[in-house]
Amino acid sequence: MTISLEQAQTIVRAALEHGTEQGFQPLTVAVLDTGGALVALGRQDGSGYLRPDLATAKAWGILGMGINNRALAARAADSPDIYTSLVALSGGKIVSVPGGVFIRDAQGTLLGAVGVSGDASLNDEAAALAGIAAAGLVSETGAEG
Amino acid sequence: MTISLEQAQTIVRAALEHGTEQGFQPLTVAVLDTGGALVALGRQDGSGYLRPDLATAKAWGILGMGINNRALAARAADSPDIYTSLVALSGGKIVSVPGGVFIRDAQGTLLGAVGVSGDASLNDEAAALAGIAAAGLVSETGAEG
Amino acid sequence: MTISLEQAQTIVRAALEHGTEQGFQPLTVAVLDTGGALVALGRQDGSGYLRPDLATAKAWGILGMGINNRALAARAADSPDIYTSLVALSGGKIVSVPGGVFIRDAQGTLLGAVGVSGDASLNDEAAALAGIAAAGLVSETGAEG
Amino acid sequence: MTISLEQAQTIVRAALEHGTEQGFQPLTVAVLDTGGALVALGRQDGSGYLRPDLATAKAWGILGMGINNRALAARAADSPDIYTSLVALSGGKIVSVPGGVFIRDAQGTLLGAVGVSGDASLNDEAAALAGIAAAGLVSETGAEG
Repeated sequence: MTISLEQAQTIVRAALEHGTEQGFQPLTVAVLDTGGALVALGRQDGSGYLRPDLATAKAWGILGMGINNRALAARAADSPDIYTSLVALSGGKIVSVPGGVFIRDAQGTLLGAVGVSGDASLNDEAAALAGIAAAGLVSETGAEG
Repeated sequence: MTISLEQAQTIVRAALEHGTEQGFQPLTVAVLDTGGALVALGRQDGSGYLRPDLATAKAWGILGMGINNRALAARAADSPDIYTSLVALSGGKIVSVPGGVFIRDAQGTLLGAVGVSGDASLNDEAAALAGIAAAGLVSETGAEG
Repeated sequence: MTISLEQAQTIVRAALEHGTEQGFQPLTVAVLDTGGALVALGRQDGSGYLRPDLATAKAWGILGMGINNRALAARAADSPDIYTSLVALSGGKIVSVPGGVFIRDAQGTLLGAVGVSGDASLNDEAAALAGIAAAGLVSETGAEG
Repeated sequence: MTISLEQAQTIVRAALEHGTEQGFQPLTVAVLDTGGALVALGRQDGSGYLRPDLATAKAWGILGMGINNRALAARAADSPDIYTSLVALSGGKIVSVPGGVFIRDAQGTLLGAVGVSGDASLNDEAAALAGIAAAGLVSETGAEG
């Protein structure tokens, strides 16, 4: 079970709209399936050319480790060495700052992850949450209640 | 001057619809700007996880060399050695088979390229052409009249 | 939906037993989930140290492209150029010879793939088939009826 | 002299069972021979797709340097520069945190190493020790008495 193209396109569209409405810097949004492969990506005009790789990496890293980016950040703080190894091992596709968010269905089944890059990382994350909500799906960032 | 997100999303949507209408295998469509960076990507359910890289490579290679894929294929036939070097130099992002198509505006200005992967390469190319036409833009494959 | 560890371990064990019973050269068997990540691997004593990468690649390539290795071989024969690009793009993880086999459940849902390396490729494939059958699952090689 | 497939499979099975009994997060266990090549690997359902690479790296790095991971961590603390170089040189396959353990026979002969990833690193290490003990072999972590 993994995210469908239609769900992924809804997430991209709604996340980008959220950024526009909030006056964020131009964003790039990437939606990955549970295996870490791209399903949909959109980059707003003016969003830099590294943003597709960075948005993808934010989602890829949390899926690859199976832990959210706040947990990744906690490990990086505990042990900078392991973080350095993970970054090298993954070719840079581990990113501990907010903006990579797990996507689950109402039953809690993991469907994939979304990564957003372009503005401050909490704004990136807010756009991801708006995208996931628009698709009627459930977010997990590690900052929940 | 480069392709806009809105144009790129139209190309992705229309190329995928063309594949569905024609009964093609599930496709992946990638639209790149003139600098070779992704603007929009969509992967249909069931399209393999290497397809995003392959669709991207089809567009990246023609942009990087500034020649269409039929011209790339002619060079590969003339001089297999240079083709091997190009493939290695680019990490595989040179692909000579059809499915990577330049996107130009009505005045002939280059806006980017689209790459399609998933079915036989002439079908991939047909989907790319349908996508570019739907955006009101002009295609260049090397097979033109 | 993807292969479980228990199913993957059954496949590894039974594929290796098949090789031993048939007097094959020492084998390595790798089972990957639908996203292309290892679930279980076993390398018999005396199987060379490149065999884990090669067995993994046989399964990874068919999953990544979504076509079996006979179809991969047909494309490579049609267009050696695309095969060269795919090999480079995937870091060598495209292998067209037999020995990579899709794993499906009774309903036809894709669960992953197994790759076997160590003996002649049709023997590798026979071991893969024996492993999948032992797990009560369904094989797809492209050589079916 | 190196670890046999049968010993390696016992280590994988017992290490995973230890994790299940202790209520650890889903684990991945990799057993490497003295040359640094995989002999057996098992990934529990739900263990992230980067875990096979990370578990393998934990074992590969200590074998490659010939020092245990506490000694690696001490060097990293003494000289962060050399650690950075080692990580880059090995493509991330140097990991200083616990979870990579040397495997020796009763006479002290080195047979290989096991790497475990999925939970906190001391829990990963505990699973590795349980696996090695189940195979009747001797562990070396650098934390010994």
